[in-house]
Amino acid sequence: MKEQTNIADTVVTNGINVTEYEEIVQAVKDQPDLAKFQFRARNRWDMGGYNLTTIKGFYGAGEEHGAEDRTFVVDADEPHILLGEDRAPNPVEYLLHALTACLTSTIIYKAAARGITIDSVESTLEGDLDARAFLELSNEERKGYQSIRATFTVRSDASAEEIKEMAEFSPVLDVVNYGTPVSLRIEKG
Amino acid sequence: MKEQTNIADTVVTNGINVTEYEEIVQAVKDQPDLAKFQFRARNRWDMGGYNLTTIKGFYGAGEEHGAEDRTFVVDADEPHILLGEDRAPNPVEYLLHALTACLTSTIIYKAAARGITIDSVESTLEGDLDARAFLELSNEERKGYQSIRATFTVRSDASAEEIKEMAEFSPVLDVVNYGTPVSLRIEKG
Repeated sequence: MKEQTNIADTVVTNGINVTEYEEIVQAVKDQPDLAKFQFRARNRWDMGGYNLTTIKGFYGAGEEHGAEDRTFVVDADEPHILLGEDRAPNPVEYLLHALTACLTSTIIYKAAARGITIDSVESTLEGDLDARAFLELSNEERKGYQSIRATFTVRSDASAEEIKEMAEFSPVLDVVNYGTPVSLRIEKG
Repeated sequence: MKEQTNIADTVVTNGINVTEYEEIVQAVKDQPDLAKFQFRARNRWDMGGYNLTTIKGFYGAGEEHGAEDRTFVVDADEPHILLGEDRAPNPVEYLLHALTACLTSTIIYKAAARGITIDSVESTLEGDLDARAFLELSNEERKGYQSIRATFTVRSDASAEEIKEMAEFSPVLDVVNYGTPVSLRIEKG
C-alpha cells in the first residue's frame, strides 16, 4: 500500500504520514479484503519461567510481509517471588504493555487522520489478579485479571472526550474488554 | 514467600523449585490475601507508531516488590505497511507474545507441581484481524482479533489432554478468552 509520495504533497501529523493513511483508507474502500491481516508469534520454552517468542512475518494488504527480513525476539520470565529468575517482564505484565502501547498508537493514528496534533501521551496501567485459581485453591476467583485501570495524560487541543472516543478504536482494548476465542491445540512432540 | 531451603530438601522440576511452590500454596491456604497481586506498566509515546513501556514494581504476597531494583523497558512500533518504522513488534503481536508466554509457563509450573517432567515446549500462534473497523469503514467487523489459534508441541510423558487441562489455568488465556473490564480515564496534560 505504501507508495512513493512527493514530499511537497505529503502531510505528516504526529509522525504519521497522513497522505499514505488516506491512500490506505481509499484502497480498502475499493478492495475490502486488503483490510485482512494475520499476525503470528512462535515461542520456545527455555527453562523454568523463562521462554522466548520470535515474531517475524505477517499477512496483510493482500500479501505476505517481512518473513525474510523482519525478526524480533522477546523474552518473558517471572519475578523471584513467583519462582523465576526475573530476567524479563512476566506474561501478565506484557499484556498490560500490549494494551497501553495499542491505546497510545490508536490515539496517535486517529488524531493524525483527523488533523489533530498530539504533543505528548503518557499512561499508567494497573491490573488486579488473585492467584488462588491458578494455585487451585479457589473456584470463586478467576484465573486472569479481575480488572484493569488505564489512566492516560494527553497534551493536545482535543478534548478528553474525543481522545477517549479515539482510544476506543484500539484493537487490543477490544480483545481485552470483550474477549476473543482462542483455539488451543496440543500435540505430543 | 521465598525462604531459604536446604539444598538436600529441595525438589526442582522443569527448573521450578517445587519445594518453594508448595510453601506458597500452603501460605496462601493459611492467608488467602497473599494471593492478591497488582501488576503495573507505564508508557510514553515517542513519535508516530513508536512508544515505550516501563515495567518496574508490583504488589503481591502482602507487600511491594522491585520498585527500586527492577526495571524493564519494552518498545512497540508498527511495520512500514502500517506507517511505522518497524523498530519493534506491534501491540497486537505483543498480545500474542503475552498469550503464548503465559500458556508455556502455565504448562511448566503446573507440570512441576504435579511431578511431571517436560522436555520441550514449542508453540505457534496466529491471530486474524480485519482493519476495517479501525479505519471506520465498517460497523460489521470488530476492532480486535476475530480469532486466535495456538498450536503447542510438547515433549513429555503427560497426555495431550492433561497438558491442555494444565494450560487452561493460564491467566492471559483467561483474559483473552473471556475479557476483563478495562476502566479507561483520559486526563488533559
